[in-house]
Amino acid sequence: MHRLLLLSHHADEYLSLIQAANLPGLSIAATSDAEEGVICGADCDIVFGEPSLASRVISYLSGLRWVQSTWAGVEPLLDPSLRRDYILTNARDVFGGFMSEYVFAYLLAHERRILQRHVSQAAGKWDKTLPGTLRGRKIGLMGVGSIGACLARTAKHFGMTVKGYTRTSETCMDVDAYYHGPDLKAFAADLDYLVSVLPNTAGTRRIVDAALFDALPPKAVFVNVGRGSAVDEFALIEALRTGRIAGAVLDVFQEEPLPPGHILWRMPNVRITSHTAAPSVPEDIVRIFLENYRRLLQGEALHCQVDFERGY
Amino acid sequence: MHRLLLLSHHADEYLSLIQAANLPGLSIAATSDAEEGVICGADCDIVFGEPSLASRVISYLSGLRWVQSTWAGVEPLLDPSLRRDYILTNARDVFGGFMSEYVFAYLLAHERRILQRHVSQAAGKWDKTLPGTLRGRKIGLMGVGSIGACLARTAKHFGMTVKGYTRTSETCMDVDAYYHGPDLKAFAADLDYLVSVLPNTAGTRRIVDAALFDALPPKAVFVNVGRGSAVDEFALIEALRTGRIAGAVLDVFQEEPLPPGHILWRMPNVRITSHTAAPSVPEDIVRIFLENYRRLLQGEALHCQVDFERGY
Repeated sequence: MHRLLLLSHHADEYLSLIQAANLPGLSIAATSDAEEGVICGADCDIVFGEPSLASRVISYLSGLRWVQSTWAGVEPLLDPSLRRDYILTNARDVFGGFMSEYVFAYLLAHERRILQRHVSQAAGKWDKTLPGTLRGRKIGLMGVGSIGACLARTAKHFGMTVKGYTRTSETCMDVDAYYHGPDLKAFAADLDYLVSVLPNTAGTRRIVDAALFDALPPKAVFVNVGRGSAVDEFALIEALRTGRIAGAVLDVFQEEPLPPGHILWRMPNVRITSHTAAPSVPEDIVRIFLENYRRLLQGEALHCQVDFERGY
Repeated sequence: MHRLLLLSHHADEYLSLIQAANLPGLSIAATSDAEEGVICGADCDIVFGEPSLASRVISYLSGLRWVQSTWAGVEPLLDPSLRRDYILTNARDVFGGFMSEYVFAYLLAHERRILQRHVSQAAGKWDKTLPGTLRGRKIGLMGVGSIGACLARTAKHFGMTVKGYTRTSETCMDVDAYYHGPDLKAFAADLDYLVSVLPNTAGTRRIVDAALFDALPPKAVFVNVGRGSAVDEFALIEALRTGRIAGAVLDVFQEEPLPPGHILWRMPNVRITSHTAAPSVPEDIVRIFLENYRRLLQGEALHCQVDFERGY
């Protein structure tokens, strides 16, 4: 018999989806409150929910065996003060579609001048300014996991050249050229679009810095759908302010929510999307949980396991 | 020996591209002025240029054999009062990429609420409104020629269901279901997006009318990248004003430029793009001309011939 602590701000929605699956040998306690989770989940061996809630509960669960995160990013559970004697799995391979729609919505909006045309319309002006095109443009992906691979495939659909910057992997067939380690300058030199999909790890912290912005051509637009920690935000603001890059599309920030008075809100060449690029769709996340629960019962290795050292 | 009249507002650009090809047996007269075209082109057997200019000159060219249009739409040359004793070829198969970027720029902008998020940003507001997604949505294409086929392919890339409304053809593999003739209501009944790619012909005039807007669900967005003549503009305005459809993205109009005081400029759920969806890129158009000139010399049938009766 397994006992599941469902710990999520969407506990009701997740509960009904999991109950509908009629899982064998499982009882469920569900709450969106961490303190209540400590009490009602005391004898639970499985936790399913948001890392920000789970991190406040796991110390109290003596029989803990497995945590399934509803998010891709699991930073709250990676704090060195926390236990690591359980299996941590995250949500993976379900955000690529959303991420691709997000990134290409903004790339196409940039080429087609959607906001500028909106201003022309408000002025009643027949605006014949020619559009740009993605065809032939160069996109650089920092991080080519399952999300980066989706972006690469859409980029190829639109006729772009795709460069990939990774630690070592070179497995995505839609990437035309790979770069690693110290090759960041060569990677950046001719990009029209630089897209960071990097997670928050020790190795990615402020990897997007002044030197990288300097290496980009002035026409380049920077897109961040990874984590705010990968960017030196002050260097970004300087690069935008001085025109060393053309613009930025930012879904993530060093501090979230972005503080009300922050200068990024008011920069004309910045688009802010408030960490909405790839929402966790409960149906998708539950599908991962159900498959992993089946694997747990049958003694198979769980999917989407997080390496605590690597951080993803 | 052939003699070419180059008659275009971009005559200089076209001239240098054609001269660079060093065509055998060809002399060229180039101008952007119709009256000058009548004089300097008197002994020309080939005309290459904009239909709006060519239509004012062809009556005076006794040796006329072939007109290559730089546009897809050739309405000015279809006027019944004009001669039809020559081969008319248009630009085709070169607009699909631009059209696809245009349509999906606006579909993605709609799903991702780009303009609404821009308003939130201006107010310094961390806007967590969830985005929509194209995945699973239904798009209906009116006209599935080479442009429609490109749109269908991008729609499938984003996981959409594709319905096609055509006269008779059912050749595009990316269309999931075809509709013809009187089936317009069944075609429209469940669409999220209705996209007209229809040319201006007798058969398409005002085919997008009040009955069709009534058949659409209220969530539907109408996109017109074909010709303004295919739409009953008054019925469109009524459908937008009363919320019978959710919005419209309009590149073409009954009268162009859209008159300054026109109500469409000021409707909040309308996006106006001033006939910029698919610009004629000289390199692409010249490629069609060069291939057709080679075919002319070798006595082969020219590509992209327009049927004067059908109108495209």
